[in-house]
Amino acid sequence: MPKTVLYYFPAKALGEAIRLLLAYSGQEFEDHRIKFEDWGSFKSLMPFGQMPVLEIDGKKYAQSTAIARYLGQKNGLAGDNLEESFEIDQNIEFLIDIRDEAAEVHYEKDVKLKATKYEDNLKNKYPAMLKKLDEIIKQNKGHIAAGKLTWGDFVFAGSFDYMKVMLRMPDLEKKYPSFKQVIDAVYADEKVRTYGEKCPKTEF
Amino acid sequence: MPKTVLYYFPAKALGEAIRLLLAYSGQEFEDHRIKFEDWGSFKSLMPFGQMPVLEIDGKKYAQSTAIARYLGQKNGLAGDNLEESFEIDQNIEFLIDIRDEAAEVHYEKDVKLKATKYEDNLKNKYPAMLKKLDEIIKQNKGHIAAGKLTWGDFVFAGSFDYMKVMLRMPDLEKKYPSFKQVIDAVYADEKVRTYGEKCPKTEF
Ligand SMILES: N[C@@H](CCC(=O)N[C@@H](CS)C(=O)NCC(=O)O)C(=O)O
Ligand SMILES: N[C@@H](CCC(=O)N[C@@H](CS)C(=O)NCC(=O)O)C(=O)O
Repeated sequence: MPKTVLYYFPAKALGEAIRLLLAYSGQEFEDHRIKFEDWGSFKSLMPFGQMPVLEIDGKKYAQSTAIARYLGQKNGLAGDNLEESFEIDQNIEFLIDIRDEAAEVHYEKDVKLKATKYEDNLKNKYPAMLKKLDEIIKQNKGHIAAGKLTWGDFVFAGSFDYMKVMLRMPDLEKKYPSFKQVIDAVYADEKVRTYGEKCPKTEF
Repeated sequence: MPKTVLYYFPAKALGEAIRLLLAYSGQEFEDHRIKFEDWGSFKSLMPFGQMPVLEIDGKKYAQSTAIARYLGQKNGLAGDNLEESFEIDQNIEFLIDIRDEAAEVHYEKDVKLKATKYEDNLKNKYPAMLKKLDEIIKQNKGHIAAGKLTWGDFVFAGSFDYMKVMLRMPDLEKKYPSFKQVIDAVYADEKVRTYGEKCPKTEF
């Protein structure tokens, strides 16, 4: 058995999709949650000075979406052909567009500008983007792409609480029940559900 | 021959990598450059209300990185195995991290905040990120990943002028000659060079 370690902060955010994919794969892994106050002594050990980082037998893998795609391909959660793989990539890139818009508000330090940007996004960006995401998921029978369970669903499920916090929409899945369907599809796997029950609880 | 159309603004930015990949593939395509003043009548026709969009026999492909990866896989510019494919994805995701940092400054409308963010990035982010990118390219013998020409190089070459403008570093390739190596490797292909000579000239 290869020794597998996931390094990330004690949060779901960009790391949880990888944890869920590792759980799905059935492979044991060390879930190394580095507290923010300890991060200073780890930063220089990471390929890009950031996390999540997956280490398999000493080899480090960085960049959350690249890692999720890689684990998806290794575990039968990729597209069956180039067209399907494209569709997963396309829809996840769109999900990241939404996340980026929300992150720009969330991480804005200037209080006044933060408020302006939030109002602008709430009016001019989020409604159309979330409606489009809802349409995509409905077309794909409760999945992100290809009409079936793929690593894209894991990225969605893993970062959903983070998105809700950044979007300031605690009831997002009530407004869009299709979003809940994707999450349920991921946790329907017994190994994932067991991981979900046992893992440390964090807000996002 | 399938009918292929690329829709984008008259700019390189997020569209040029796709044009370069199409040129490399040797396949004819209509390079539909939509002026910003005409965009209003096209927006609703695009899957996510944005461009670039590639249309092949009526089927629309959106999201620039997903399209580049797809064309790369179709044209022998992908990794030879999952590890190599991961490496391309990882390093391109890092390139996008740099682009996102620079875009946050470039698209900031608040003049004062724009200046503050620029200074902050120039001091605390760009140096380490560009140094890391330079190291990666050197390790890969003048390429983004896998030590050979891949679609990742096309993404780099296609968006390089856009990055320079957003980073405000007109001499970037003088400081990092490795960056020029990647671009040269892409334009070394005769079909790409011919496209580069004939295409409309834009600043970025
Ligand atoms: N593009 C990267 C972004 C990673 C990232 O932003 N990581 C943050 C935490 S979510 C981080 O490590 N921050 C600490 C730091 O930059 O020092 C990915 O998707 O993996
Ligand atoms: N994630 C998308 C972003 C596309 C994007 O931002 N497109 C811009 C031009 S670079 C656009 O279409 N803007 C016009 C609009 O949003 O109405 C991609 O990489 O393709």
